[in-house]
Amino acid sequence: MYIIESHYLSSTQKTMSRPIIFGEIPGIVEGQWFAGRREMMDSSFHRNWGAGIDGNGNEGTAAIVLSGGYEDDLDEGDVIIYTGAGGNDPGKNQQIQDQDWQNRGNAGLLKSMDQGLPVRVIRGAGHKSEFSPKTGYNYAGLYSVVDAWEAIGKSGYTICKFKLEYTGQNPQRKTPEQIELDYSGRGTSRKETTVVRIIRNTNTAIAIKKLYAYQCQVCGVAIPTKSGFYAEGAHIRALGKPHNGDDNSDNLICLCPNHHVMFDKGMFAILDDFTLIGEESGILHVKAEHKLEIANLAYHRKSHGYD
Amino acid sequence: MYIIESHYLSSTQKTMSRPIIFGEIPGIVEGQWFAGRREMMDSSFHRNWGAGIDGNGNEGTAAIVLSGGYEDDLDEGDVIIYTGAGGNDPGKNQQIQDQDWQNRGNAGLLKSMDQGLPVRVIRGAGHKSEFSPKTGYNYAGLYSVVDAWEAIGKSGYTICKFKLEYTGQNPQRKTPEQIELDYSGRGTSRKETTVVRIIRNTNTAIAIKKLYAYQCQVCGVAIPTKSGFYAEGAHIRALGKPHNGDDNSDNLICLCPNHHVMFDKGMFAILDDFTLIGEESGILHVKAEHKLEIANLAYHRKSHGYD
Repeated sequence: MYIIESHYLSSTQKTMSRPIIFGEIPGIVEGQWFAGRREMMDSSFHRNWGAGIDGNGNEGTAAIVLSGGYEDDLDEGDVIIYTGAGGNDPGKNQQIQDQDWQNRGNAGLLKSMDQGLPVRVIRGAGHKSEFSPKTGYNYAGLYSVVDAWEAIGKSGYTICKFKLEYTGQNPQRKTPEQIELDYSGRGTSRKETTVVRIIRNTNTAIAIKKLYAYQCQVCGVAIPTKSGFYAEGAHIRALGKPHNGDDNSDNLICLCPNHHVMFDKGMFAILDDFTLIGEESGILHVKAEHKLEIANLAYHRKSHGYD
Repeated sequence: MYIIESHYLSSTQKTMSRPIIFGEIPGIVEGQWFAGRREMMDSSFHRNWGAGIDGNGNEGTAAIVLSGGYEDDLDEGDVIIYTGAGGNDPGKNQQIQDQDWQNRGNAGLLKSMDQGLPVRVIRGAGHKSEFSPKTGYNYAGLYSVVDAWEAIGKSGYTICKFKLEYTGQNPQRKTPEQIELDYSGRGTSRKETTVVRIIRNTNTAIAIKKLYAYQCQVCGVAIPTKSGFYAEGAHIRALGKPHNGDDNSDNLICLCPNHHVMFDKGMFAILDDFTLIGEESGILHVKAEHKLEIANLAYHRKSHGYD
């Protein structure tokens, strides 16, 4: 065993022994500028020299660097659409094969989403947005991963996409929803509580749930409560950016909470003839008067790698 | 058939034909003062002359009047603990029998909770709080029912309790969590979308879920996702006011989303020997190294009418 003197290798070695740290790093504030990647490593702010994503599927992802490259990414400041790791030729910055969810960084971002772990977002000068620094890197603050799906990139290869929303402490930057993600601490430590799911209801969802008497269209379960049965309206093509699904009855199905989680996470999908694929088999029970938008079923399948 | 001239009866008759309206009533603003109950009826603001609760189990509850009476109620302005209807002697304003969830008004408040419907809160002069008017009534704004449970009142009888949180539009009054309840409208109409459940995670919950390999302690199900399994940490004695449960491992169990909904709504409970009662039978699977606080199991049972 000897100490490798190379600047690059010693950084990599140090990475291995640094612990992953989630959330804010003492002494580093939102907006802080860094001349280079090296300056981010010793504090565990971003431990990797080369990779954009600092994390893994076991622990989650703690930090990402936006350094440009993906043309179909989006950066609105507090809402970011981010393309995951893998499958690109680093020399040419060009996609040469499909990305997958087993990739260490992508698996880490999924873990952070499911656990509600905060992700430090860092913008590099190479990232094309009005928020990027002219040189070096700046710290954009803490974000939450709120969605993950698959798409076909401009290269024609499958890419893993993530939606991140700002959930840091700067009140001037926060949308109401982000304040909720950040708040949620009554009765316990604020730092330790995160939001992993928000279940919404709409008038259309209520109508669809009534049509099915609150029985899950996959398994037939209706959850009893003192005020009748409980079910959830699941949007096939999700509301809001980037999916822009609508709240019409042809985009809604009635599911029990368990199947709602599985559907949102793409663990099963629905063919045009309502056959279930993935981790569920059988058929989605659909009443004759409930017309479903077939294009939305296809969108959901494509988002989760079934087509 | 003839028109009854009595002031009281004609008001009651009008009530029957007025539709229930949820949310704000055009022309009536937060803070508005009313000389009496009669003035609230024609607009459907509060349709009942006598009852505190305007609503029913089919449609939900649209409005309540706080008029004092229950000593163990709480009014912090934006957070209100409210006692339901039934079982009291109106002449003496004294509890003479148990309340129940079948009561029209109580069933309506449960329905509003499950559907995320807004409730107009009105304070009367008889209600003892710093927010009450000296005479007449004032409109406190829109609230959401966020919790419902049973307790033994000072009278010794069972009473139905509700927790309401302000979710109106006045930004100066909103806590971050309430803004979320109110917001939630991206991609669809703000007015039509409500939040019915917020699933939180804590570090302790993550540890408990790992201990059980994300298998539900009731049914053994573990929901598969691309990043491992999904389960929810359920606090036996709920966090936050008024229950003030803690985030320790002896107050947490690992449940699938379906059983989490049922447990939170009190559809089953857990005896001290972990036998399940209510809508579930069998036993809660508890590992030897996972100590549960028996007093919290008892608190949950009592809150939902099992003890």
